[in-house]
Amino acid sequence: MKVMGTSFGRNLGLGSLALVAVALASAPARAEVSPETAFVFNTFSFLVHGFLVMWMAAGFAMLESGLVRTKNTATICLKNIALYAVAGILYYIIGYNLMYVDVSGYIGSFSLFYNPSSAEIDLIGAGGDATPEQIAAVVDNGYSKMSDWFFQMVFVATAASIVSGTLAERIKFWPFMLFTVILTGFLYPIQGSWTWGLGWLNDAGFSDFAGSTLVHSVGGWAALTGAIILGARKGKYGADGSVHPMPGANLPLATLGTFILWFGWFGFNGGSQLALGSAADAANIAIVYVNTNLAACAGVVAAMILTQLLYKKIDLTITLNGAIAGLVAITANPDVQNHLLAIFVGGVGGMLVVFAVPLMDKLKIDDVVGAISAHLVAGIWGTLAVALDADSFSTQLWAQIKGIVAVGVFMVVTSSIVWLVMKYTIGLRVDEEAEEMGLDKAELGMEAYPEFGHGSQSF
Amino acid sequence: MKVMGTSFGRNLGLGSLALVAVALASAPARAEVSPETAFVFNTFSFLVHGFLVMWMAAGFAMLESGLVRTKNTATICLKNIALYAVAGILYYIIGYNLMYVDVSGYIGSFSLFYNPSSAEIDLIGAGGDATPEQIAAVVDNGYSKMSDWFFQMVFVATAASIVSGTLAERIKFWPFMLFTVILTGFLYPIQGSWTWGLGWLNDAGFSDFAGSTLVHSVGGWAALTGAIILGARKGKYGADGSVHPMPGANLPLATLGTFILWFGWFGFNGGSQLALGSAADAANIAIVYVNTNLAACAGVVAAMILTQLLYKKIDLTITLNGAIAGLVAITANPDVQNHLLAIFVGGVGGMLVVFAVPLMDKLKIDDVVGAISAHLVAGIWGTLAVALDADSFSTQLWAQIKGIVAVGVFMVVTSSIVWLVMKYTIGLRVDEEAEEMGLDKAELGMEAYPEFGHGSQSF
Amino acid sequence: MKVMGTSFGRNLGLGSLALVAVALASAPARAEVSPETAFVFNTFSFLVHGFLVMWMAAGFAMLESGLVRTKNTATICLKNIALYAVAGILYYIIGYNLMYVDVSGYIGSFSLFYNPSSAEIDLIGAGGDATPEQIAAVVDNGYSKMSDWFFQMVFVATAASIVSGTLAERIKFWPFMLFTVILTGFLYPIQGSWTWGLGWLNDAGFSDFAGSTLVHSVGGWAALTGAIILGARKGKYGADGSVHPMPGANLPLATLGTFILWFGWFGFNGGSQLALGSAADAANIAIVYVNTNLAACAGVVAAMILTQLLYKKIDLTITLNGAIAGLVAITANPDVQNHLLAIFVGGVGGMLVVFAVPLMDKLKIDDVVGAISAHLVAGIWGTLAVALDADSFSTQLWAQIKGIVAVGVFMVVTSSIVWLVMKYTIGLRVDEEAEEMGLDKAELGMEAYPEFGHGSQSF
Repeated sequence: MKVMGTSFGRNLGLGSLALVAVALASAPARAEVSPETAFVFNTFSFLVHGFLVMWMAAGFAMLESGLVRTKNTATICLKNIALYAVAGILYYIIGYNLMYVDVSGYIGSFSLFYNPSSAEIDLIGAGGDATPEQIAAVVDNGYSKMSDWFFQMVFVATAASIVSGTLAERIKFWPFMLFTVILTGFLYPIQGSWTWGLGWLNDAGFSDFAGSTLVHSVGGWAALTGAIILGARKGKYGADGSVHPMPGANLPLATLGTFILWFGWFGFNGGSQLALGSAADAANIAIVYVNTNLAACAGVVAAMILTQLLYKKIDLTITLNGAIAGLVAITANPDVQNHLLAIFVGGVGGMLVVFAVPLMDKLKIDDVVGAISAHLVAGIWGTLAVALDADSFSTQLWAQIKGIVAVGVFMVVTSSIVWLVMKYTIGLRVDEEAEEMGLDKAELGMEAYPEFGHGSQSF
Repeated sequence: MKVMGTSFGRNLGLGSLALVAVALASAPARAEVSPETAFVFNTFSFLVHGFLVMWMAAGFAMLESGLVRTKNTATICLKNIALYAVAGILYYIIGYNLMYVDVSGYIGSFSLFYNPSSAEIDLIGAGGDATPEQIAAVVDNGYSKMSDWFFQMVFVATAASIVSGTLAERIKFWPFMLFTVILTGFLYPIQGSWTWGLGWLNDAGFSDFAGSTLVHSVGGWAALTGAIILGARKGKYGADGSVHPMPGANLPLATLGTFILWFGWFGFNGGSQLALGSAADAANIAIVYVNTNLAACAGVVAAMILTQLLYKKIDLTITLNGAIAGLVAITANPDVQNHLLAIFVGGVGGMLVVFAVPLMDKLKIDDVVGAISAHLVAGIWGTLAVALDADSFSTQLWAQIKGIVAVGVFMVVTSSIVWLVMKYTIGLRVDEEAEEMGLDKAELGMEAYPEFGHGSQSF
Repeated sequence: MKVMGTSFGRNLGLGSLALVAVALASAPARAEVSPETAFVFNTFSFLVHGFLVMWMAAGFAMLESGLVRTKNTATICLKNIALYAVAGILYYIIGYNLMYVDVSGYIGSFSLFYNPSSAEIDLIGAGGDATPEQIAAVVDNGYSKMSDWFFQMVFVATAASIVSGTLAERIKFWPFMLFTVILTGFLYPIQGSWTWGLGWLNDAGFSDFAGSTLVHSVGGWAALTGAIILGARKGKYGADGSVHPMPGANLPLATLGTFILWFGWFGFNGGSQLALGSAADAANIAIVYVNTNLAACAGVVAAMILTQLLYKKIDLTITLNGAIAGLVAITANPDVQNHLLAIFVGGVGGMLVVFAVPLMDKLKIDDVVGAISAHLVAGIWGTLAVALDADSFSTQLWAQIKGIVAVGVFMVVTSSIVWLVMKYTIGLRVDEEAEEMGLDKAELGMEAYPEFGHGSQSF
């Protein structure tokens, strides 16, 4: 198994940093990437791939807007932009430091804020008069500090985005935002420090290239505990075990959201190489792009064929979730050099969704958009599948299980506590009347589509 | 005529590769782009421009979702994500090799799959211990192999996307997918090998920078034969020669789709320079961006003014297709150095759409979204217009006609065979009842907008 | 205050150009970015950040489509794509030259068109045979000429986009387009030359990194004069001082539009560094990304909390405008090194919107989408706030006031003249019947959502 960008931690782009060192020693004689050029490449990779991941916030917003009913659409729009905003601020105030600064096994620094290095400030201030020493002081770090912050920040927003869809149509707005504060400021960064902060899970050999577990399962676990503690939507499950379908109101928007996520995932996985400043890094990122794409393709095809076989009709929503599941599954190991394995991993992800969605309904876990199936179930699968590409299958499998369990236990315990405390204090759920009326009118006093009338399937 | 990236074939970024050779010989004495730096630039250009082109799949999905009627909207969403997925897998399994590997005039290799080079795998595996020889072995290729695969793959998806819109509202789902398999696995790559694979059409002097003919007309020809063989939608054309308008259900989505396509086209044309690793490449890509934008602008303005003059009202749908036609038209020669020529080429493209759309109706060719007009007609125009920028107008014009005819004949014959075989075996068209009911209910058992009621113009 | 990219003018990327000069003198001995590499980086930054800004045109289209009523939706879609097209052509014909070529204090060149340099044409034509002299002749400029043109062009489109939303639902199509011609061909470039063209306002110390005043307030002033001269929509303001709400028809589209704008703003502010070819430039762009994001986050959070406190309900539309206001506010100084200041600047921007929107209604200025509040009010705030980060607060504040007033007076006077001349000649406003019926049927003869029926809130 090649381990670039994983066993050396998420903050080290091995290839290019090593090249930097070599090049510093012998720059004139080599035809390679100069240290400063590598710095620019690495920084630009964080920024370009980061803006793609930021855009995934819009993908979740559209996916969820399309899959809720009209009476709750404005609220889900609001939640999606609000959670991104809260994630950004909390991760700035405390989250990043907890995750990446001076991690000693289980947690990083409790210091506040995160800023450019003084070397960077000096260099920028010097402008055209910068000395070689000033340049070297910055270039030495391999990439600009704030570009990394930006890239990591959009990841925490992704984790938070996963939660909103599952809990839609019945959770109160402000308690949801409070949960987002805790998730993005504390829970996500603490578990993240264990692996990407080079803490104990990284030492234990756990490998998760771009976050099948660290991002997607984390969001999925929080969604799962939330869904259980919050309960199903009124009328969703009959006393007789029947399941009342509550179809999404705007499937083109859901489709758009899925395409946005797919598009953004090139940033999510590609940028997680954490470096672009060498031929090795560039070649590996290209492999990542190809696998990301193939896994999603396979997820779509698998979900389509399976729903056709099982139900004699293709389900658009399941197919969209098949794409997402394929993407989630490959995220733990998107630089696998055997592209057929990527197709396999993504395809299984797509199939898992087909079974997981009705299973959730059987368990009366009401997941409005299928996020638990697509992000948690496929995330676990993808994380395990890393072992298929490992030097030692059993060793790696054991490490992967360790990581999945550790993160799962942590997230289930902590998120349950947060949900339960809120449930029994400020309250988590809108009252029945508000749920019936829809959150848009009840909580926001507005309608998402005030002019579109109401068809036969309105609720 | 400047010929970078065309006469030397689509897989050679001339400027930067030549520089690589020069720089390898005399690196220390020059202040230029080092070979490894050029490799990173070239690879990153494929990736960045490639993700833009991938995003065009969402553009087609939104454009077509907006232009069909509500009862067929979920199906067109499904088709668009499914065709992208199928294209990705088929082009991986066989298509790319047919198009680019060991092309001997008329076709490439029948080998399966496509993988990173062993040199790339070695380099990635070496990590920080890579030797200069290992780096050189990779850098020598000019760009990462899989980055090129990714970029080429999103092109085949574009060709397939063109077909779905024209045939919407009456074609069965699985036959359409089967056609997509054949188009993306075989038809597109075979004709592509003639020019971009450096086959006989390239030798004949045919020039098509980013695919006015190779991508857009190819999709357009397949759509045309499909539309004829499938027949018009029930009720579209009266026995008395009347045309019954069936307006699109969601024009903001169609507008969004057009903007997405425009945005993605910077990747489509810009990335087709196939290199970024030299000042010449970068400067030429900038010219490409400017022309791409100006041609689309001209297509919009021309279509608007012409519809105002002809019909006294501006037609939004025609204007959107005017933008697309301008983009398609400039695609054969987007690096023309006279920007006024780009405005002219795009403007004529926009005007052609205004005439082609009603002409199709007169011919009773039922093109739901206007794709034949925007992609085939404007694609032919743009391909011919390459001659306006050539050293010898008549020589180039002759070469262009040869290419247009060769690709046209090939696509008409092969796609007709495929459509006809399906028509008389598994069937191509849903039955009348299903068409009346809408494909969403008939084939998917769902509605795209279940709550929006039905206005006076529902069908 | 660090002044890279501002006091040296918008067309000079100081950091990298200086490095180019140094490197040319001593390339072999340094491990830095070679001049040609810097050229590629700078050019690619213009292109990548430029395509992000281009995409903002889609953001405005979706935001405005979501915030108008259904009967005017197709028209606002058309206006948005048409204004982008017109801006592109006018800025090519005359605008860019007025703004950037041979600016002598108050205005640039009246010459027509803008083209690649002959050195660029030579280099591209030389292909693989380019001499070092040919390369140097191009590289000397620091970036490709047309890449800069592209980047500047998408900015003028942004200014024009701001106007369309405010004046929606009652302005005639062709007069609006004529105004766009004048705004993008003349008004925007002339005032732009004063600062970014290195004219008198730049000499006076006025600082506006990416255009809080030069782009956003310019659009806002034109929208303000237009709204006053055009008058409010029929029925919007009762004789008794009551305000009749006319809610937007499709809030998920408005949310999507806001996300697109946020996404595109990384290009808007990041690309305004105007260079990427040095560690200093890359590090500064990273800081810009972080601040851009934090300010938008703060705008959202501030608007949410404030509407909750004031109205007991969160308003989605106001919150979306809070994000935009945060972005507009930070645009004048997005490279502030104290990120808490960015949060403050964005948060105040979000709060200003909460007060400005009802204030406009009190003044009976009918701004359909809130653009005056988000772009003009927050733009003034952000421009003033530059002084908070200055070496001398009072000196800078004075310079900022000078700039705000100069641009404001120029835009109010010139845009009023244009609006008034049109009002009393060709007419600005559709007649009452057309306004009642909706512009889609009246001017375009079509409906945006022909099948969606009409709910209780239809107008």
